[in-house]
Amino acid sequence: MLKLYYAPGTCALASHIALQETGAAYTAARLDFKTNQQNSPEYLAINPKGRVPSLVTDRGILTETPAMLAYIAQSFPKAKLAPLDDAFAFAQVQAFNSYLCSTVHVAHAHKGRGYRWATDEASFTDMKRMVPKSMGACFALIERNMLKGPWVMGDTYTVCDPYLFTLSGWLEGDSVDISTLPKVAEHRKRMSDRPAVREVLGQELAAA
Amino acid sequence: MLKLYYAPGTCALASHIALQETGAAYTAARLDFKTNQQNSPEYLAINPKGRVPSLVTDRGILTETPAMLAYIAQSFPKAKLAPLDDAFAFAQVQAFNSYLCSTVHVAHAHKGRGYRWATDEASFTDMKRMVPKSMGACFALIERNMLKGPWVMGDTYTVCDPYLFTLSGWLEGDSVDISTLPKVAEHRKRMSDRPAVREVLGQELAAA
Repeated sequence: MLKLYYAPGTCALASHIALQETGAAYTAARLDFKTNQQNSPEYLAINPKGRVPSLVTDRGILTETPAMLAYIAQSFPKAKLAPLDDAFAFAQVQAFNSYLCSTVHVAHAHKGRGYRWATDEASFTDMKRMVPKSMGACFALIERNMLKGPWVMGDTYTVCDPYLFTLSGWLEGDSVDISTLPKVAEHRKRMSDRPAVREVLGQELAAA
Repeated sequence: MLKLYYAPGTCALASHIALQETGAAYTAARLDFKTNQQNSPEYLAINPKGRVPSLVTDRGILTETPAMLAYIAQSFPKAKLAPLDDAFAFAQVQAFNSYLCSTVHVAHAHKGRGYRWATDEASFTDMKRMVPKSMGACFALIERNMLKGPWVMGDTYTVCDPYLFTLSGWLEGDSVDISTLPKVAEHRKRMSDRPAVREVLGQELAAA
């Protein structure tokens, strides 16, 4: 059985929702970031990067959200979470997810994780100040060019949707005015109504 | 026919090599970053993110290196650039590539692209100073935990290899001592001997 390591409020939510959407049996193990459990020897043996999510499978351990989302879609084809028989359409799904991980998530991370890229307090303050602008620019591009609607890829729900939902959930905390992003806001509302999303948010909240 | 937009010295090299490895016909169009051609109206119509690489296909345009590498592998299965019939092994390929794009490339980008995440000159200086350490840590993890050898995934060459080759080519410029990374150094040498790599480096050099 698959086992997902996650922490509430992190990008692991995307894989958590995707797993729930498949209807497959899985377990979810919560890490406590407040006690730095992601850097405990036990967890570093699972994921030497000290990050979430990690997915334990009977073949080994997977990390990195875009890879896990594609894996979940491919492992449970009946759930139809990606266009598996169309290399171009699949690449569009992956390009969207890759943008979220390498540009959008990175922009957000400069609010609280500046120590990854600098050492001075003044730099951290400068980075924090930029986040509303950089996250705002990312989501303006998503609103204008990428989110087809009603789902990310158009009429069909894919693994892009829980990933976008996860990152768009950070917008208020990043001081981005979501009223300027009507398609993103509508997408978030539409996601919130899905049973799998309600179930997972309930699980993560109950465990926290 | 596929058309790749690239600029010399960028991560587009990974997709360029992968395309060449397939043996398929393609064209490669060089952008001049010195004249900011990536932000010209003509190019922004192709890729509104103003980045390379972009891949023009008969179905539309793809961006984001990990998505393009998987697309190239799936579109030319005879080239055997990824384990296409094994979802777990394919996810391992994708996890490696996702780490390169979202963590390693991002660490490197703080040397010259600090303006993406901050505004003060002092912050840029601070960020630049951190790059040898952050890139060094990324590549220490790759050396220790990720690069199986002789190729990234072990005995079989995959799309991970041109991507690693591309980013490991930045190490000297980022002041990381490659002598501490013998497996990475050996991988780079092994890659340099491949006909596809020699051909593409020749093309990119001749065009520059």
